[in-house]
Amino acid sequence: MPLPDLAPAPALDLTADVTTLTAAVCDIESVSRGEAALADAVEAALAPLAHLEVVRDGNTVVARTNLGRAERVVLAGHIDTVPLTAVPNLPTRREGDELWGRGTVDMKGGVAVMLRIAAQATEPARDLTFLFYECEEIDGEFNGLARVGATRPELLQGDFAVLLEPTDGAVEGGCKGTMRVDVTTTGVASHSARPWKGHNAIHDAAVVLSRLAAYEARTVTVDGLDYHEALQAVGISGGIAGNVVPDRCTVTVNYRYAPDKDTAAALAHVQEVFDGFETTLGDAADGARPGLHLPAAKAFVDALGVSVGPKEGWTDVARFSALGVPAVNYGPGDPNLAHMDDERCPVQQYVDAEAALLRWLR
Amino acid sequence: MPLPDLAPAPALDLTADVTTLTAAVCDIESVSRGEAALADAVEAALAPLAHLEVVRDGNTVVARTNLGRAERVVLAGHIDTVPLTAVPNLPTRREGDELWGRGTVDMKGGVAVMLRIAAQATEPARDLTFLFYECEEIDGEFNGLARVGATRPELLQGDFAVLLEPTDGAVEGGCKGTMRVDVTTTGVASHSARPWKGHNAIHDAAVVLSRLAAYEARTVTVDGLDYHEALQAVGISGGIAGNVVPDRCTVTVNYRYAPDKDTAAALAHVQEVFDGFETTLGDAADGARPGLHLPAAKAFVDALGVSVGPKEGWTDVARFSALGVPAVNYGPGDPNLAHMDDERCPVQQYVDAEAALLRWLR
Repeated sequence: MPLPDLAPAPALDLTADVTTLTAAVCDIESVSRGEAALADAVEAALAPLAHLEVVRDGNTVVARTNLGRAERVVLAGHIDTVPLTAVPNLPTRREGDELWGRGTVDMKGGVAVMLRIAAQATEPARDLTFLFYECEEIDGEFNGLARVGATRPELLQGDFAVLLEPTDGAVEGGCKGTMRVDVTTTGVASHSARPWKGHNAIHDAAVVLSRLAAYEARTVTVDGLDYHEALQAVGISGGIAGNVVPDRCTVTVNYRYAPDKDTAAALAHVQEVFDGFETTLGDAADGARPGLHLPAAKAFVDALGVSVGPKEGWTDVARFSALGVPAVNYGPGDPNLAHMDDERCPVQQYVDAEAALLRWLR
Repeated sequence: MPLPDLAPAPALDLTADVTTLTAAVCDIESVSRGEAALADAVEAALAPLAHLEVVRDGNTVVARTNLGRAERVVLAGHIDTVPLTAVPNLPTRREGDELWGRGTVDMKGGVAVMLRIAAQATEPARDLTFLFYECEEIDGEFNGLARVGATRPELLQGDFAVLLEPTDGAVEGGCKGTMRVDVTTTGVASHSARPWKGHNAIHDAAVVLSRLAAYEARTVTVDGLDYHEALQAVGISGGIAGNVVPDRCTVTVNYRYAPDKDTAAALAHVQEVFDGFETTLGDAADGARPGLHLPAAKAFVDALGVSVGPKEGWTDVARFSALGVPAVNYGPGDPNLAHMDDERCPVQQYVDAEAALLRWLR
């Protein structure tokens, strides 16, 4: 008897309603680095659509109209999820007005909305690019958006991008940047029974922590949105042994800065705060301006008629920003439920997001 | 052809001068837990001496006179050393007026002085106990003095003890106690892009460190000696991840306290300093009063005619103190050279120590 073939992923029916399609997308499990089956299903669903050019790159799928419109808009969403819960929170289940399960918030509702629009918007007012990408939930080196942006940037070009990450149905513009900086104090080691022969570096860190505790973070308005900056210790370490006055203490601080600053300006501010101490830049990722003054963005906000605020966390909109494409976050689902065991979303949010985006794009 | 026997350690000649004997004791390598050969040699050298009762316990050797004197004095020294340097600093070598090599300071000069006195003081004014013990340089669970003190305390009884640890030829009385206490701050974790939803425990540690930096340690006079207390951070840790406001920070402090206090009194002081914070006692070892007002101790100081100061570090005199035996440190060698790659001692210090102790004991 021959061995059975591995079951292929079920086909995605883009004519089904968006809630049914979201459930189908969620039920093709795609924890980061395991997106092949879902990428296959997305590619297979889009390939027959005559108005779209479909390109596969790894487990990332790009689909584009080429209608010669004056503007091009990019809709983007990652197709991976964080791991399932111990008792797997898949397949999805419907409870009352909500869809429960991994991906229902982050962000297969957005993926389903993109697929629905790709199928319906055959004659859009603006050319459209749909990016379904892999590995957003893990280390940036695997990120499909980053890879395609580096190797085939022409596929991602556009005048404006919408990232369909969950925003609870609001528009969140741009994002703050983030950097980690080590602030180090140095002393002189000695036996802790005779500390007057040394100098305690941990005691010196009192000044570093006092400056952090007293720090008043700025609120910076960029393109009409208020970004709340933050400067926080996220780690501290020091000490050699239980009987030694330590000669070194390192406070790792995380600076979240408004998108009016680049890495150099942000680092200069941190160095000013910790004047007199040794600072070492760890990693940094600049934020993204919301670009809400641009025509495509204005039209987007007007068409949606939803509230507009700043994105406080760093998201992949910054990768679009680095490619010269202004971007906002807008998608169904409460971000506070992302990654949670009880991940779930009111299905009306899927319906509303699809309708709002179609209003804008048709 | 039979396998060769392991070469026995060379015999120790107790009639040789103290410098020659020190070199011979050093040259029988005895890194902690490898003291068998040296313990064998010590036992073999003492066994023929008719005025001494010799007891072997593991690699610890006890030798005692039983002359019915009114007082009994204990001379004690460990026979182990820290490991040798990468290019071994044995065998010893003589350079000018100094003997170089592992153990020349810590503390085989003291061991040689004890062996010389054991051989010469056949009719001492006070009964004598000589304790040659293993494993002082490593974790206390292996310490030969601690073991014999627990299992055969009668072997260590006396009116006064001298520990021949290196003191550069001065008398150092008693020792300070030491305890470690964790001082912990607690907060509320949140994403570091939205820190206003959490509370940063590392920032709260600013107050803990500021109290340490401002702390003015007391100098406490006990039995005529001034002990300099100290309260130092010896470790600090906190932080969950680079993008999380930490909910916990722990500062490990080391309190070195004068021998007028026991564990409870010392802990109460630490808790008073860190009032308002959670404190957890780690380990604690009380110090030892110098007991220099006692007749045997007075006679000792008078006979030696050397300077008398407090011992700032914790030493095994505290183990004698716990057995009810007042104790001081007195021995050849500069303690700052103990454990160093260039460990070395002026040979005159061996000669002086032997002569001073014989003046007192005869």
